[in-house]
Amino acid sequence: MSDLEEFRRYREMMNERILSAGNLGIKRFFALDSRAYEEGVLDVKTKEMIGLVASTVLRCNDCITYHTIRCVQEGVSDEELFEALNVALVVGGSITIPHLRRAVDTLDQCREKQRKGQAVKL
Amino acid sequence: MSDLEEFRRYREMMNERILSAGNLGIKRFFALDSRAYEEGVLDVKTKEMIGLVASTVLRCNDCITYHTIRCVQEGVSDEELFEALNVALVVGGSITIPHLRRAVDTLDQCREKQRKGQAVKL
Amino acid sequence: MSDLEEFRRYREMMNERILSAGNLGIKRFFALDSRAYEEGVLDVKTKEMIGLVASTVLRCNDCITYHTIRCVQEGVSDEELFEALNVALVVGGSITIPHLRRAVDTLDQCREKQRKGQAVKL
Amino acid sequence: MSDLEEFRRYREMMNERILSAGNLGIKRFFALDSRAYEEGVLDVKTKEMIGLVASTVLRCNDCITYHTIRCVQEGVSDEELFEALNVALVVGGSITIPHLRRAVDTLDQCREKQRKGQAVKL
Amino acid sequence: MSDLEEFRRYREMMNERILSAGNLGIKRFFALDSRAYEEGVLDVKTKEMIGLVASTVLRCNDCITYHTIRCVQEGVSDEELFEALNVALVVGGSITIPHLRRAVDTLDQCREKQRKGQAVKL
Amino acid sequence: MSDLEEFRRYREMMNERILSAGNLGIKRFFALDSRAYEEGVLDVKTKEMIGLVASTVLRCNDCITYHTIRCVQEGVSDEELFEALNVALVVGGSITIPHLRRAVDTLDQCREKQRKGQAVKL
Repeated sequence: MSDLEEFRRYREMMNERILSAGNLGIKRFFALDSRAYEEGVLDVKTKEMIGLVASTVLRCNDCITYHTIRCVQEGVSDEELFEALNVALVVGGSITIPHLRRAVDTLDQCREKQRKGQAVKL
Repeated sequence: MSDLEEFRRYREMMNERILSAGNLGIKRFFALDSRAYEEGVLDVKTKEMIGLVASTVLRCNDCITYHTIRCVQEGVSDEELFEALNVALVVGGSITIPHLRRAVDTLDQCREKQRKGQAVKL
Repeated sequence: MSDLEEFRRYREMMNERILSAGNLGIKRFFALDSRAYEEGVLDVKTKEMIGLVASTVLRCNDCITYHTIRCVQEGVSDEELFEALNVALVVGGSITIPHLRRAVDTLDQCREKQRKGQAVKL
Repeated sequence: MSDLEEFRRYREMMNERILSAGNLGIKRFFALDSRAYEEGVLDVKTKEMIGLVASTVLRCNDCITYHTIRCVQEGVSDEELFEALNVALVVGGSITIPHLRRAVDTLDQCREKQRKGQAVKL
Repeated sequence: MSDLEEFRRYREMMNERILSAGNLGIKRFFALDSRAYEEGVLDVKTKEMIGLVASTVLRCNDCITYHTIRCVQEGVSDEELFEALNVALVVGGSITIPHLRRAVDTLDQCREKQRKGQAVKL
Repeated sequence: MSDLEEFRRYREMMNERILSAGNLGIKRFFALDSRAYEEGVLDVKTKEMIGLVASTVLRCNDCITYHTIRCVQEGVSDEELFEALNVALVVGGSITIPHLRRAVDTLDQCREKQRKGQAVKL
């Protein structure tokens, strides 16, 4: 199983487990989280790039993997992604470099899938 | 002197002081920082909203004041700003709320200046 | 106006401003935030101490002021507060010491009000 | 070897290695750390929930694994744990979600051990 | 009263208040904190520069003021301080710039005192 | 392949990938990052210890592995490393303990290589 598939499997399994636990606050938080990235006066692509940069400066690898996949799904180009990541690098400093590596690694895995005609799924 | 003017005065004075100190690394960093927000494949407005959200989740008030002013200068609407801040709030949690207050306070001071026909300066 | 009153005035004013802006996500987040501290299987006092420690290790002064006031309102004793803050100090390190000072300063202002027979309000 | 056993083995081995290195400051810090969670005016169970929430908002997986195990040992119920984690989620935002998954995963491994009549050890 | 004097007064007053509260863990932590910067195989000057950089990347203004004063007391030159701060800036990113301003502002206040033949006190 | 070799392989591969992507800002940042640790008025050994402590309080494992290797290459002794890590532990708190384990684990792998007469490479 590839990294992306393992990421998806674990994320899906644990989210189901957590949402089935019956804590209403957590369920509502997950709903708010999804809605925050839906189209409004800002489009989804912009919001996903914002989410990626926020995840990078906060240095959360799983969040970076998630938003990189979402950016690819929304049609963000490589150049756009690198410009957004450059802002993250300048804001967050060299401490974000290992996470920059993770974002680019995920990007490359997504592009590889696209080259093979496979869907980039979450 | 208003908050925004005091912010500008101190920031300008200290930046000059720091850049005149002769440390080449710091000077180059300041140049990189400026260039990161210049137009590329992403436009300046998008980059400034990204900078604002990154500053909010990292909870840096001066950075929030700076990027809110820059967003206003780039024509970000109130609704766009609130949508970007909503992403920051969801990503960064309630711990960002005092910084959300600061961003909105700065926004209101900028709009007040605009209503009076005054320039919103940095 | 005392520190606590200025804190309350600004917090109340800006919360009203933000909630009247019409961003549904932000409104729902504020509601979730309030509900998280309501009585459940854990009592309010325990939740407020948890909120205080979380605010201290994340080093947010406004959040520390808020939860210290709430702890006092819920009847947390000085000794209980110091034990909770000791956990925060050990987890978060010396970088939290300026925030420990803020928490104790707020505590002392609350106790002063109580000695004078005044309500400790938010 | 299960995740929990690998966690315990590595933690124990490295703690011994570090404590045998002869740095007095580090030894004393480890002692202070242990004592912070001992019974005082707050009971151990409350302190361990505080430790879990602090670890979650600071997003430290090893600390989350440790305090989740300790919470289970102290008799924290699933509902209590989820309420504490809900506070962590609201305070720390969606960036804590991968760590929430880790906490619940650890909880489930502990409950599985208990169902089999095995001790939940550190 | 100057910034440095107000910083010293408040820090001293609150430390006394906290240490007199009778929480043994907190007292021991404060002792450990002091000892960590005493001469060992590393000299005090090196340790204070390390403390300053750690405070800067963690973005704690009071800690930055404290360690800048201590660096000046230990004879760190302006050039050494700027080189240490440059490492902090590169590691921590532009989000540390407001704190870099604070460090340099404190440095300038200390140098002003020295020019006047006054002691730089904590 | 050992941990250190896997770390080196992945770091080298991804850095090449990122630097070949054509984003000028990122390339310049990487150059600034390298230069920050070069000899100036502070020697390389001091700067690498500063880099290690900054990485530890910011809790970045890859950065800790990198700077521990560099410290060993620059002749930092075990006692010096533990004193620097003690400062990191006191500043950053128990939340840094898992990263302290990582630093010491890397140190031990480096010393093992040296005992075998092998180069400690990056």
